[in-house]
Amino acid sequence: MAKIRIGIAGYGNLGKGVELAVRQNDDMELVGVFTRREPETVKLMTEGVNVYNMKDVPNMQDKIDVMIICGGSATDLPQQTPELAKYFNVIDSFDTHARIPEHFANVDKVCRENGHVAFISLGWDPGLFSLNRLYAESILPNGKTYTFWGKGVSQGHSDAIRRVEGVKKGIQYTCPVDAAMDAVRSGSQPELTTREKHTRVCYVVAEDGADKAKIEETIKGMKNYFDEYDTTVNFISEEEFDAEHNKMPHGGFVMRSGMTGDGEKTHQMIEYSLKLGSNPEFTASVLVAYARALSRLKAEGAVGCKTAFDIAPAYLSRLSGEELRASML
Amino acid sequence: MAKIRIGIAGYGNLGKGVELAVRQNDDMELVGVFTRREPETVKLMTEGVNVYNMKDVPNMQDKIDVMIICGGSATDLPQQTPELAKYFNVIDSFDTHARIPEHFANVDKVCRENGHVAFISLGWDPGLFSLNRLYAESILPNGKTYTFWGKGVSQGHSDAIRRVEGVKKGIQYTCPVDAAMDAVRSGSQPELTTREKHTRVCYVVAEDGADKAKIEETIKGMKNYFDEYDTTVNFISEEEFDAEHNKMPHGGFVMRSGMTGDGEKTHQMIEYSLKLGSNPEFTASVLVAYARALSRLKAEGAVGCKTAFDIAPAYLSRLSGEELRASML
Repeated sequence: MAKIRIGIAGYGNLGKGVELAVRQNDDMELVGVFTRREPETVKLMTEGVNVYNMKDVPNMQDKIDVMIICGGSATDLPQQTPELAKYFNVIDSFDTHARIPEHFANVDKVCRENGHVAFISLGWDPGLFSLNRLYAESILPNGKTYTFWGKGVSQGHSDAIRRVEGVKKGIQYTCPVDAAMDAVRSGSQPELTTREKHTRVCYVVAEDGADKAKIEETIKGMKNYFDEYDTTVNFISEEEFDAEHNKMPHGGFVMRSGMTGDGEKTHQMIEYSLKLGSNPEFTASVLVAYARALSRLKAEGAVGCKTAFDIAPAYLSRLSGEELRASML
Repeated sequence: MAKIRIGIAGYGNLGKGVELAVRQNDDMELVGVFTRREPETVKLMTEGVNVYNMKDVPNMQDKIDVMIICGGSATDLPQQTPELAKYFNVIDSFDTHARIPEHFANVDKVCRENGHVAFISLGWDPGLFSLNRLYAESILPNGKTYTFWGKGVSQGHSDAIRRVEGVKKGIQYTCPVDAAMDAVRSGSQPELTTREKHTRVCYVVAEDGADKAKIEETIKGMKNYFDEYDTTVNFISEEEFDAEHNKMPHGGFVMRSGMTGDGEKTHQMIEYSLKLGSNPEFTASVLVAYARALSRLKAEGAVGCKTAFDIAPAYLSRLSGEELRASML
């Protein structure tokens, strides 16, 4: 059986994660990595795989079954996904929730004009968390859904810290509040404010002679980033920062608290959680599993843009329907 | 828009749960309950719904969109599901894992001969737990999956206790061992024996003058039921039994511990858990959500037997694809 031929567009943390995830699936092979940089400057981890410039994309149309696009959601993906969908079946992890309908429409149009399939907004949130919200709300219509994130690094908040004057290095962890999660699990269906759900914990290396009190005050007051949260700022040495804060852990919880039965008195609790040693590596693993699903759907004649909601679970697995029923049901 | 017309075959705890779950979904209506008992002896909770004898099934063929079959897996469903699939689209919760392939083949054949759709083995295990095993194993191919059950009532083990001489009333709770779950969460991917994963806790009301030591010894030694577990037997009064042990709670955990990244050194943990106040009411809620999915797949022209693996998540929700993308992704 022919292997699924994977391309990677964009070689940052997510692209590297995809490269490594493809190795764990021997029904797939990595065909090439596409970059906006000079290809000679990009060194892959995999022997025998070529690096191409994004401009070479049209020439590779027949050599790649699924292009996994690993750009950022703010500016890359809104442009790259529709553009690459002209030439390939594509997958992205577009995560700007408010702009998903618009992105979907753009990508769907290009796919239909070119006979391609696109899966957008895959990963864990949006992605696996979305799936869990959908299953849980469909099963327990009388209830309330809660999403908690962390403990994990927020790239946006870390960037914000690093823009503060006097900050040499900085990282921010979003932390779910245990008491809030326990209140949800109790079945009381609490209304929780932003402040009650998460805290923000920052680790900062200050420049020599910087005013630490001022840095702390500036961070804690940043609008849209920190002002609605209980924020802790820890000043640490550069050595400690480099040793302890060089990973990208993340995770979170989706909870549905629902009531069933006569008089709706029975509490039913569904909880899904992730504890991820590496956010980009895990997101990459999700994208790669869905690349298998895409190649199968495409073989069945599918066209257009889809999300995790539209894809029957069996398409993700290497096992046949018969094997799945015998071993996993 | 016409409501989805639901029938219930079998009116025990699960059938009653379906009746109550249908009330929570106003795109559905309960059309009738079918029983092997005399219809006059069955009292429903819903006004204006008729009780029919199973023999009347052929006359109701055009009045029901989805028949939810609520019999037991041991003897009822292997016979009832293929039989009723002659007349209706059907859903069952067949949970004898080893016999699923055979049951699937039987039901699929009848469905194809009669142009019907069947969903089998739905509920939470098999069902939601199976889905979580599939998603997690597809995403983290290098890893290990664990399923823990409880704390919850095992009907089979409770029945076994009640067959012991001198036992007036008895109930058995299966309990997951916290230390085993914590070991899994640590990423050590332990090999766990049956005894290490679960304990069994029994509550027994003894007959007057019964030999309690003998009862305890008999229970603990029962082959295939208790001999491989650490079992605790608590003797309690009938009053306490009736007051404290009249519910059917259950639940459990599906965990996938996987490794990703360069050298497979990054630990990634996926965990799904249920804490159910009522096992039959929750199982019923799953069946009813899938009844919606079935009616939609049927409208698209589907035929044959399917499981949770084959059904795209969006089919379960009342929301349109557009609404789902805007609100839940």
